[in-house]
Amino acid sequence: MAHSIAADRSSDSNAVAVVVGGSRGIGLAMVQSLVSRGWKGKIVATCRDVEQADALSALWQFMPDRFNVLSMDVCDEASIEEAVDEVKEWTGDSRVDLLVQCAGILHEGDNMPETSLARVDADFFRRNLEVNLMGPVLVAKHFSPLMITKRKKGRVPSVLAALSARVGSISDNGLGGWLSYRSSKAGQNQAMRTMSIELGRRGIICVSLHPGTVETDLSAPFRKNVKPDKLFPADKAAGMLLDVIDSLDTEDNGSFFSYDRKLIPY
Amino acid sequence: MAHSIAADRSSDSNAVAVVVGGSRGIGLAMVQSLVSRGWKGKIVATCRDVEQADALSALWQFMPDRFNVLSMDVCDEASIEEAVDEVKEWTGDSRVDLLVQCAGILHEGDNMPETSLARVDADFFRRNLEVNLMGPVLVAKHFSPLMITKRKKGRVPSVLAALSARVGSISDNGLGGWLSYRSSKAGQNQAMRTMSIELGRRGIICVSLHPGTVETDLSAPFRKNVKPDKLFPADKAAGMLLDVIDSLDTEDNGSFFSYDRKLIPY
Ligand SMILES: NC(=O)c1ccc[n+]([C@@H]2O[C@H](COP(=O)([O-])OP(=O)(O)OC[C@H]3O[C@@H](n4cnc5c(N)ncnc54)[C@H](OP(=O)(O)O)[C@@H]3O)[C@@H](O)[C@H]2O)c1
Ligand SMILES: NC(=O)c1ccc[n+]([C@@H]2O[C@H](COP(=O)([O-])OP(=O)(O)OC[C@H]3O[C@@H](n4cnc5c(N)ncnc54)[C@H](OP(=O)(O)O)[C@@H]3O)[C@@H](O)[C@H]2O)c1
Repeated sequence: MAHSIAADRSSDSNAVAVVVGGSRGIGLAMVQSLVSRGWKGKIVATCRDVEQADALSALWQFMPDRFNVLSMDVCDEASIEEAVDEVKEWTGDSRVDLLVQCAGILHEGDNMPETSLARVDADFFRRNLEVNLMGPVLVAKHFSPLMITKRKKGRVPSVLAALSARVGSISDNGLGGWLSYRSSKAGQNQAMRTMSIELGRRGIICVSLHPGTVETDLSAPFRKNVKPDKLFPADKAAGMLLDVIDSLDTEDNGSFFSYDRKLIPY
Repeated sequence: MAHSIAADRSSDSNAVAVVVGGSRGIGLAMVQSLVSRGWKGKIVATCRDVEQADALSALWQFMPDRFNVLSMDVCDEASIEEAVDEVKEWTGDSRVDLLVQCAGILHEGDNMPETSLARVDADFFRRNLEVNLMGPVLVAKHFSPLMITKRKKGRVPSVLAALSARVGSISDNGLGGWLSYRSSKAGQNQAMRTMSIELGRRGIICVSLHPGTVETDLSAPFRKNVKPDKLFPADKAAGMLLDVIDSLDTEDNGSFFSYDRKLIPY
């Protein structure tokens, strides 16, 4: 079952995949993996600054009919609405079959995740909530109407996947620290779970995904103590996450999966 | 064990209890219950507008030496720092033995909790995060230094309790809806859990508490389908929560309790 669903999705030349936060890190690797694994339909990557996204521009020059780069800041609702309009116009259809939300922050500028309560900075806390929690909610609010699947015949369930993090698990939290990031990711997990109930009724599969520790800008300052075999290149992480996505069926709606398809408790 | 700890705390005339959001609802009932159950030390209630807090003013006239009302908005970090300074000055000691954080919102003005994703309003979502998630964090940041207990002899563990809600539980979420409130409470639960690890090292007990469905302004629009025996008057809820607080020992640090002392899964 699961296999045929995934095969249907990626072999359908009318299918549309959207990768939010496709400029760097896991998001960029996700776009590259979709292409290399033979996604037959269209692919949209969003990023904040199209001019700066060289790898995406190169891919666009390579396959302009099937690939598009759109500017979108997940903290700017108007930019999300504009991107949705552009997706509709470009695809000539109100249709998204797979949306992977990869935009996220752990540190930004000089702001590093908190090592103690005394170091909590209200503005950086807010910024974490804005990008990691409100971002995925606003993206889902405006993109999910394109994912209504039950009413259209011959379409397999759409997938709305958001990158979360194991450190967002509350019950698994034995170490503490990173207060704003952890809180934003737990809030994001609850938002995904809450949305999964409404969207699941329309046949959409919503999941949160933990990518492992991945070699990206986000993890760069914190990789010293990670064992080499536990540090994944971004393309490896993206491949494992796409394997998980390909394996999803409607009963997986509302779950939190690790890259190895193990469930993570909330 | 547990009983003697609680008895020590409430029979110590030097002990200080702080109730944040004491103007109405469960917070006000918490202040009243502390008095009626015979808390021997000092009690501080905080609220946004001291002028409007008639019940607290009346209590202050009744026992001005042991009770104080301070103005504090949990969204305004400067006001929290000022309140901490006033607590230190008024008590003549840097000491808080019990802090119960009761400030919270579910609806505000014309904004009601979301019944669907399409109704998500970014500003109201932000407001939920600001009051329900950042509020408890900023309160803990500035009040917890007064709760260092291990170093001082003869003192029992301080308790930092935050009112949360069962609908904040991610794994228990089978209904959906109330997206911003649910997300803010899950984030709050993760923040409490994260802080509990740091504060637990200093001997502080941090817990999240679910009060049940309580007859307050917060629940007023949503009580139609609640069975009468499942709707608690505020004083009953406050009493049950104080029973839970009185029963806490250090091994309970980082947990999420219901009013009946049952653990709620995250
Ligand atoms: N790397 C890990 O070890 C790891 C572990 C657990 C979870 N994760 C999660 O995986 C996701 C991706 O992380 P990553 O490692 O790939 O991070 P990354 O390399 O730092 O990339 C972050 C991406 O998010 C985008 N972004 C940031 N703020 C944005 C905003 N306001 N609007 C739109 N896009 C924004 C960035 O776009 P710009 O180019 O415009 O900045 C970039 O594409 C995050 O949710 C992260 O929490 C990563
Ligand atoms: N009632 C229930 O059925 C129920 C169920 C589950 C959980 N809870 C939780 O229990 C807690 C108390 O709820 P309640 O029913 O007592 O609500 P309530 O009657 O509406 O009272 C809310 C309290 O929060 C204060 N507050 C709101 N915003 C604030 C801010 N920015 N700064 C400082 N104080 C602020 C209010 O003070 P002002 O007077 O200044 O507005 C008031 O004292 C909340 O966390 C709620 O989520 C309640």
